[in-house]
Amino acid sequence: MTEINESRLKNHFLYPFLNPRSIAVFGANNEFLSTMGAMQLRNIIFGGFFTDKIYPLHPRLDEIQGLKAYKSVLDLPEIPDLALLILPTKVVPEVMENCGQKGIKNLIITSGGFKEIGEEGKILSDKINGIAKNYEMRFIGPNCLGIYNGWFQGEKENSNFNTMWIYETPERGTISIIAQSGTVASHLFWYCNKIGVKIGKSFSTGNENNIDVVDILEYLKEDPQTSVIGLYIEEIKRGKEFLDVVKKIVPNKPIIAIYAGGTDAATRSIMGHTGSISGDDKIYETVFKETGIISTFQIKEFLYYLRVFSYDIIPKGRRMGIITDSGGCGAMMAKAAEKLGLIIPEFSEQLKIKLKKYIPSIANIDNPLDLTFQFNQYNLYIKIPKLLINSGEIDGIIIYAVFGFEEILNVIKASGGKSYEEFDISNEIMRGIYLKPIQKLVKKTRIPVFYIGPQGYSNPWIKEFIKANIPIFDLWDMPIKCFSVLAQYSEYKKK
Amino acid sequence: MTEINESRLKNHFLYPFLNPRSIAVFGANNEFLSTMGAMQLRNIIFGGFFTDKIYPLHPRLDEIQGLKAYKSVLDLPEIPDLALLILPTKVVPEVMENCGQKGIKNLIITSGGFKEIGEEGKILSDKINGIAKNYEMRFIGPNCLGIYNGWFQGEKENSNFNTMWIYETPERGTISIIAQSGTVASHLFWYCNKIGVKIGKSFSTGNENNIDVVDILEYLKEDPQTSVIGLYIEEIKRGKEFLDVVKKIVPNKPIIAIYAGGTDAATRSIMGHTGSISGDDKIYETVFKETGIISTFQIKEFLYYLRVFSYDIIPKGRRMGIITDSGGCGAMMAKAAEKLGLIIPEFSEQLKIKLKKYIPSIANIDNPLDLTFQFNQYNLYIKIPKLLINSGEIDGIIIYAVFGFEEILNVIKASGGKSYEEFDISNEIMRGIYLKPIQKLVKKTRIPVFYIGPQGYSNPWIKEFIKANIPIFDLWDMPIKCFSVLAQYSEYKKK
Repeated sequence: MTEINESRLKNHFLYPFLNPRSIAVFGANNEFLSTMGAMQLRNIIFGGFFTDKIYPLHPRLDEIQGLKAYKSVLDLPEIPDLALLILPTKVVPEVMENCGQKGIKNLIITSGGFKEIGEEGKILSDKINGIAKNYEMRFIGPNCLGIYNGWFQGEKENSNFNTMWIYETPERGTISIIAQSGTVASHLFWYCNKIGVKIGKSFSTGNENNIDVVDILEYLKEDPQTSVIGLYIEEIKRGKEFLDVVKKIVPNKPIIAIYAGGTDAATRSIMGHTGSISGDDKIYETVFKETGIISTFQIKEFLYYLRVFSYDIIPKGRRMGIITDSGGCGAMMAKAAEKLGLIIPEFSEQLKIKLKKYIPSIANIDNPLDLTFQFNQYNLYIKIPKLLINSGEIDGIIIYAVFGFEEILNVIKASGGKSYEEFDISNEIMRGIYLKPIQKLVKKTRIPVFYIGPQGYSNPWIKEFIKANIPIFDLWDMPIKCFSVLAQYSEYKKK
Repeated sequence: MTEINESRLKNHFLYPFLNPRSIAVFGANNEFLSTMGAMQLRNIIFGGFFTDKIYPLHPRLDEIQGLKAYKSVLDLPEIPDLALLILPTKVVPEVMENCGQKGIKNLIITSGGFKEIGEEGKILSDKINGIAKNYEMRFIGPNCLGIYNGWFQGEKENSNFNTMWIYETPERGTISIIAQSGTVASHLFWYCNKIGVKIGKSFSTGNENNIDVVDILEYLKEDPQTSVIGLYIEEIKRGKEFLDVVKKIVPNKPIIAIYAGGTDAATRSIMGHTGSISGDDKIYETVFKETGIISTFQIKEFLYYLRVFSYDIIPKGRRMGIITDSGGCGAMMAKAAEKLGLIIPEFSEQLKIKLKKYIPSIANIDNPLDLTFQFNQYNLYIKIPKLLINSGEIDGIIIYAVFGFEEILNVIKASGGKSYEEFDISNEIMRGIYLKPIQKLVKKTRIPVFYIGPQGYSNPWIKEFIKANIPIFDLWDMPIKCFSVLAQYSEYKKK
């Protein structure tokens, strides 16, 4: 994080949206289950906000969730950095007026019922735009969930700023998401935490009346806490500015984008969702291709792609080595890889001779390399990958292996088997032994090594990979797709 | 289960492979971690096999895993129904001879190193074929993991027969898998248990020297414990017989197939894996299409397709209704659906009027139907789906909703919120209230209703769905794909 970046961002108009020092919350109460705003206030409180700087506003209640509530924004002891409006549509203009009179400059308007519901909503939409202009206010929304900032008070370990309804918060990381959908901006947090997608910032931009995706991209371009950006788009309003900013971003920070429009029902759905008019799929595909944006319309691909890019090891080419302790998945990976234009080169005779030393005699030496049943973890995790990396014959490696030390040792113990003391050490130490040497080499050579462990993400050994930001997968479809988009990005950067 | 089926299968030559009353195990010892056979014996014991009917054989050991071990198969007190060979390749012929002399008729040969390693292996392969012929023995393998039978001693709740290395066993169900890969036959069990893919039988067939995929298909055709079949294929040796049997099976039991060959590296991998020569992808695709087999080369699609088919609700057409409590995923599902040839019809005016009663005023009434933030669970789970089902305007429904009652109530309680007694009941009772009425209607109308809960499969509320065999998903890519293959199968059946 450079000094220049920091100071530049502190003066950016979005900075207080992400890092408010005080906040007014309209529309919260104590009815957690039935009132969306109640949960949103809860999330702000539990993210570690300075509680004496949260000002709930309510026409009747004196106390909300343990905080003093105010009847009017004009009564507040200070001018809050930010106001969050979770109110019935019809009262929004009046509350905005009050905020303007108080001198509040930044608003998040959660309320829906604007242009996405038709003519009547459009009039209201124009009205709030006018109020904002009058008072020189900036606002996110309407029809949005606002902001998640996992770097809020970044010096504290578990603090965050979360104006969304979803109470699950992701582990802090360098992925930032901008979404014209609250679902994509926040409902994914559970899944992200399971598979280790570490999100630092997430923006739900809604109808984008005032602040749009381009504004936020400009912020993230300079943001030292952002290394990769996920976009969910239903419509781009400022096409030229969008092109300008992404062209600047992509060579330094990869962008993964979903364009949700482009088919009949999708267009209908989007009209009712944010009131946008979406365009031809092909236009967006062309834009994405020309600017080097990785595009998908599958949500899991979106998350996995963000994850592998956040690890920041971009391969130099398309040649992959596949190592497995079991044959079938090697064949499937080879097929998927070739269908995606990756190359699974045959190993040279020279490399085969070197490999022979570490391979059971009944196994075939080839790429994919099937080690068959393999007890020698040192060969599997270190010796063989090292030979492949140093050979210069591949640009990336995938290792498939069933091995959850702790789980297997427990099964053996419970079955009356002997104890294997050499393996009966913590997973963390195990990681030091089996993964760290290769990780060093990966960082040095920029040859990514992916791992697959079919025991799944809840297994303690697999969790070690996630903790250490090592690309781990539960089954073998996704690593191939991920490698292919890494290679795609690599080629774009070379141009 | 009809009487005819049962008696027919008891005389089938594969019956004792699945339901042996006694077994000889060659190649097990007490070295669980380094010897594959040790874990395989462990799995047989812990599956609930009659321990006095397991005969481990070993040249030196007197006791293995608490069982009396024998030096020679000729010393056994009876002729075992089945012998399992997990031995170095070179001793296999001799052991087979001994088994033949003892009168053993059924073998599983795990050992690899036959035709998959080249010329030398081919000679050995012919040799074991000859021995089997001599003694009129049948065998699975070589180069396989054998059998998992979750219906072994089906009257006992947790018994199974598992000759494979993987110790995790799937929940018993009506899915059967035949795989020319031990990975696909067994490594998937962890994942299956997480997402509720309930497997009854799994066969790892290896090189198929003696018993092949066609033999097993013929068995499963009659098997009352099998309602859907998963195939992993690297090569079909008896093409005509394969076509004959699948044509008979598919109209009654759907088949989902992976063909792993067809590309250069895949073919190379397969040669080294089972020694098969795989053919052109297009030939297999044509065969699959003509016989109504659902084909994929993604392993997760394979598992999810098996799961939805096992629920046995096949839609009549391609029209889907989408209900969400959040907009973005509706647009994405609509796009994915249309790309897969599904139809998201606009609702009739008549239906819209009926729906209006249950929809917040700020929400748009359309398909996809975005309810926005929705506290009224009764409308979401019952009223609205009922209206859609009874409208005759759709053939299937997807409901996306964030609601894990227990988790949300816990969060509210921990945040000092009030208790919601009406929701503070067990998830099982909750299922009775919110899901059972619709399930009844689903079974009656044959209109499948899929659910998506982004909290994921470990959430207690989501687990209720899995327990009750209700199609639940964590995110929204897979339900669309699943619905499309259900529709594809439905159309094939109509022809």
